Amino acid sequence: MADMMMGCITNFFVYETAKSVVVKSWTVGVINRVAQLLIILYFICWVFLHEKAYQNRDTGIESTVMTKVKGIGTLNDQVVDPADYVSPPQGSSTFCIITRMIITDNQTQGECPESEKTFSCSTDYNCTDRKDAHLANGILTGRCLNNDSYEGQCEIQGWCPAENDNQTVYPMKEVENFTIFIKNSIRFPRFNVSRGSIDSELDPSYIKNCTYDAVENTDCPIFKVGYILEQTVQTNIAEKGGEIAINIAWKCNLDHDEKNCKPQFSFTRLDGVSKVSKGYNFRFAKYYKSADGTEYRTLHKAYAIRFEIIVSGNAGKFSTVPFMINFVAALTSVGLAAVFCDLILLNFLKGADVYKAKKFEEVSEVIQSPVDKSYKSSQMSIKSLVKRSNDSGTFSIGQHEATRNVNQSDI
Amino acid sequence: MADMMMGCITNFFVYETAKSVVVKSWTVGVINRVAQLLIILYFICWVFLHEKAYQNRDTGIESTVMTKVKGIGTLNDQVVDPADYVSPPQGSSTFCIITRMIITDNQTQGECPESEKTFSCSTDYNCTDRKDAHLANGILTGRCLNNDSYEGQCEIQGWCPAENDNQTVYPMKEVENFTIFIKNSIRFPRFNVSRGSIDSELDPSYIKNCTYDAVENTDCPIFKVGYILEQTVQTNIAEKGGEIAINIAWKCNLDHDEKNCKPQFSFTRLDGVSKVSKGYNFRFAKYYKSADGTEYRTLHKAYAIRFEIIVSGNAGKFSTVPFMINFVAALTSVGLAAVFCDLILLNFLKGADVYKAKKFEEVSEVIQSPVDKSYKSSQMSIKSLVKRSNDSGTFSIGQHEATRNVNQSDI
Amino acid sequence: MADMMMGCITNFFVYETAKSVVVKSWTVGVINRVAQLLIILYFICWVFLHEKAYQNRDTGIESTVMTKVKGIGTLNDQVVDPADYVSPPQGSSTFCIITRMIITDNQTQGECPESEKTFSCSTDYNCTDRKDAHLANGILTGRCLNNDSYEGQCEIQGWCPAENDNQTVYPMKEVENFTIFIKNSIRFPRFNVSRGSIDSELDPSYIKNCTYDAVENTDCPIFKVGYILEQTVQTNIAEKGGEIAINIAWKCNLDHDEKNCKPQFSFTRLDGVSKVSKGYNFRFAKYYKSADGTEYRTLHKAYAIRFEIIVSGNAGKFSTVPFMINFVAALTSVGLAAVFCDLILLNFLKGADVYKAKKFEEVSEVIQSPVDKSYKSSQMSIKSLVKRSNDSGTFSIGQHEATRNVNQSDI
Repeated sequence: MADMMMGCITNFFVYETAKSVVVKSWTVGVINRVAQLLIILYFICWVFLHEKAYQNRDTGIESTVMTKVKGIGTLNDQVVDPADYVSPPQGSSTFCIITRMIITDNQTQGECPESEKTFSCSTDYNCTDRKDAHLANGILTGRCLNNDSYEGQCEIQGWCPAENDNQTVYPMKEVENFTIFIKNSIRFPRFNVSRGSIDSELDPSYIKNCTYDAVENTDCPIFKVGYILEQTVQTNIAEKGGEIAINIAWKCNLDHDEKNCKPQFSFTRLDGVSKVSKGYNFRFAKYYKSADGTEYRTLHKAYAIRFEIIVSGNAGKFSTVPFMINFVAALTSVGLAAVFCDLILLNFLKGADVYKAKKFEEVSEVIQSPVDKSYKSSQMSIKSLVKRSNDSGTFSIGQHEATRNVNQSDI
Repeated sequence: MADMMMGCITNFFVYETAKSVVVKSWTVGVINRVAQLLIILYFICWVFLHEKAYQNRDTGIESTVMTKVKGIGTLNDQVVDPADYVSPPQGSSTFCIITRMIITDNQTQGECPESEKTFSCSTDYNCTDRKDAHLANGILTGRCLNNDSYEGQCEIQGWCPAENDNQTVYPMKEVENFTIFIKNSIRFPRFNVSRGSIDSELDPSYIKNCTYDAVENTDCPIFKVGYILEQTVQTNIAEKGGEIAINIAWKCNLDHDEKNCKPQFSFTRLDGVSKVSKGYNFRFAKYYKSADGTEYRTLHKAYAIRFEIIVSGNAGKFSTVPFMINFVAALTSVGLAAVFCDLILLNFLKGADVYKAKKFEEVSEVIQSPVDKSYKSSQMSIKSLVKRSNDSGTFSIGQHEATRNVNQSDI
Repeated sequence: MADMMMGCITNFFVYETAKSVVVKSWTVGVINRVAQLLIILYFICWVFLHEKAYQNRDTGIESTVMTKVKGIGTLNDQVVDPADYVSPPQGSSTFCIITRMIITDNQTQGECPESEKTFSCSTDYNCTDRKDAHLANGILTGRCLNNDSYEGQCEIQGWCPAENDNQTVYPMKEVENFTIFIKNSIRFPRFNVSRGSIDSELDPSYIKNCTYDAVENTDCPIFKVGYILEQTVQTNIAEKGGEIAINIAWKCNLDHDEKNCKPQFSFTRLDGVSKVSKGYNFRFAKYYKSADGTEYRTLHKAYAIRFEIIVSGNAGKFSTVPFMINFVAALTSVGLAAVFCDLILLNFLKGADVYKAKKFEEVSEVIQSPVDKSYKSSQMSIKSLVKRSNDSGTFSIGQHEATRNVNQSDI
């Protein structure tokens, strides 16, 4: 019993290592080392240095943005400031600078002719059961108002007079001089690293007076609207409105000092992609009450530049798990060189048969019966020997070889 | 010196390959190939084709959404248009369509009885030091206003009269006919691929007149509110408000043509999950000034359908790093078939001992002293030989074997 | 032909297994097993249990947030409710609670002196071509208004009178008693798992009356502003405003019951990072019309606490692909123990040469010409033999060995 256990333990602490054939051939040797070198180079240069596959990545960035627009402009003969033209006013990551506004003053609830030309009519019949009724500025009453003019307009019920957006209204030219202050705080939750877009080591007086450009003032948090429009090659955006994305990209290698983790700004136009719905506008109303308590409103169709601050993050940090996986993959791949070299060694090299014979030891199926064990196996061995003697071109010392072969397959 | 270096170089360019035992057994051979085939099939079909493990993934999508609601409805006997019922008006990814509104007109700063029934009182004592004071519509003055009625109400200071939300107000039925235009621009920052939800090859006139459905008009950017509500199996949402998510999923295989990277729309209700706080409402006020300069306001408790457009992306693109890792894992796994086959070969097959003897060469611990080197090692060899002769059932040509064994362990 | 095919098939179903040398050495045996054990422990404990490398991860969470603020305060001698001090009012994930407000009443379009001290002047010259003109509250007319006082101010055109933000205005102290109700619905799109922040099994009456704290009421969706400020160690935030992040982290192991997937709340201050632009404020205006139709506005400079609810998710679920990769990496790594042991075995152990000889079989380059095949190869073998006899310290039975070596390299 104790013996058996001892035997088990002895067997357990046995070390098993692969038996190798060492081929002293310059051809395969060099091929092997070159192949290994190439694989190692690939892993070091591409996988580890370029792709940084030893890092864990975090792209699920947490981000908050604070913005503030400054500048004075003239819109519809009024001098306007940010409280007038920025909407919404809270300074969030998405905001609009209104650059042109069609104003329909003093609208009250009532009936009046529709302003849209598609709702022109000659008889009441043109104004009933219309498929595009939902596109009118109010509920179609079904009447056609055309008593004195050649072509009339359907009557609507709603806010009257209806908006007429075929007015000539000039855009606010000063928009290009406006400045946008942007503050962005981010966090990579996976690594618990927080960063801010404004370098805390910067001189506060510099920050107040600088304007961003991509060459010299990359740390400045104040962006001139004109500069942004220039970068996105926009013309005439103040007329029809548009959507501009301010991309803040945080590409960080957190294995280095966090201070090197800085945002990159870029600017793209978003509404230019499709031919449909170029530009950007929205409608809003201001509500008033007259002295007698009746409500009236001023409808604004605002053409605006909508700025969207889009923050993306991609941080990497050394981690054992991806490192181990790629390291093991690298080592295994180096081993793959052997597969390739074996191919050459065993097939294309002079003396391939010698190598083959050396590398492979054959053992055929053993169908042993307790009685004629020794006979069968010797039979087999001889068969394999015969076969091998045909394969190999370097068969010389026949008798000895035969003996050895028989021995080996009989161990 | 030059010799030594030459020797080193020669040794370096030596090729080492594992010595193999080739077993000509149909049983293990077939098992081996079948196991290898299964492993290869698993990797090809599941890992590579189904899971696309050879791709890098980007789920940190950058997205901007532009929306525009159209439609005319009737709310509290007024004809309302988007400027009235859409809030906020800028057409962002989150917006509310107000479907029912409790209006408290002409509120001014002053004192008045609280409207909430929980603040009913009979004496002033009921109105002082209340724990739920922060739930009142104003600051409790501590007085109970109950001079003439049986049950009074605590007096509050604040905007008066206090809101009474037990009014019967009918929801806007027309909301189901409203349409929402949605434009979504996305970018996968990892692959620098930008896409828009509106196919630029579509006919602009089609886009203006279509309405989305999941079968025929999957490219149409205009969604009928009624259709969305239908998809989320909502009833009565106009009465109590609710939250609807419009999910835009971009699942893209960027190894194919980018044009196949199209959004999938789906609709879910968000506020139905928990029993608490079903529905959705918010309060806002419009401010007015009377001729004498005193400010008054109209308080609106707006029940609304809040639409949240949630964009998610999942793009994959071939990349060498995950490909290599999975490819190496595949090759290594194919090698695992051998572990399994060895188990069978060495334990369960007839003639396992023959195979065992063939596969394993034993060498025992060498405890050599400079003096009797040769003696010790021969001793050992003989010991191992004796042991082995007990193991193996195919021992036949004793004398030769013994000689060979001694030789080998003495090399 | 049929024979050849049969041969091919036979060859295909041959099983090849590595020939091994079994070293019965306690030293290497124990080192080998200990190294293997350490590697296995590392993979089980760190890679699999701690890092959960067998899981697919989803960090691209979809999230919607609904908020509602309650509380009554006093601001500029007015009693205010959420409709007054929450902006925007829709209850989205970002909202501001206005805590202090500088009000500039009854502004109309016109000319007036600038209020900012930087625009003080003594002559008109000081008011023309100023570089900081865009920082004024209106368009500089170029005139200096200084008729009766020692120091004058440049005249501006715009909303007059200009805002003077050097007023002493007291912040709203009651803000600490306000409560924020937060409802968060999330979805992990990769695993199609939806969760809500409000446990549907909670008693609705509890939810209405509780307040969150990190110890006992972690499930309560109502947060006291005072509690949040306390957690972020803020003082005086009501005076200058500030930005507070309410982080909701969903760390979920979806291999367990989904019910264990619960949000973690934490609170951080965002605007304190950089010395510049501490605090938070924004400007908005309310517009009025006088009886004669002229528009005037009240400008508000609102110092506010901006709350940003930031939701991050990190869910893991068992998946075959990462499991296989890590499992294969683990097995391969266990194999790496052998590399280490070989190093010891072949270099540092007593009798290393014996092991070396046993492990490696040499075969030299075969440069055979059809004519003197046998001669060349024997030559080579003898050379290698001579070399080896110098290497090995355990050379004993010379003649036999020589014979065998010649044989081997000649097979």
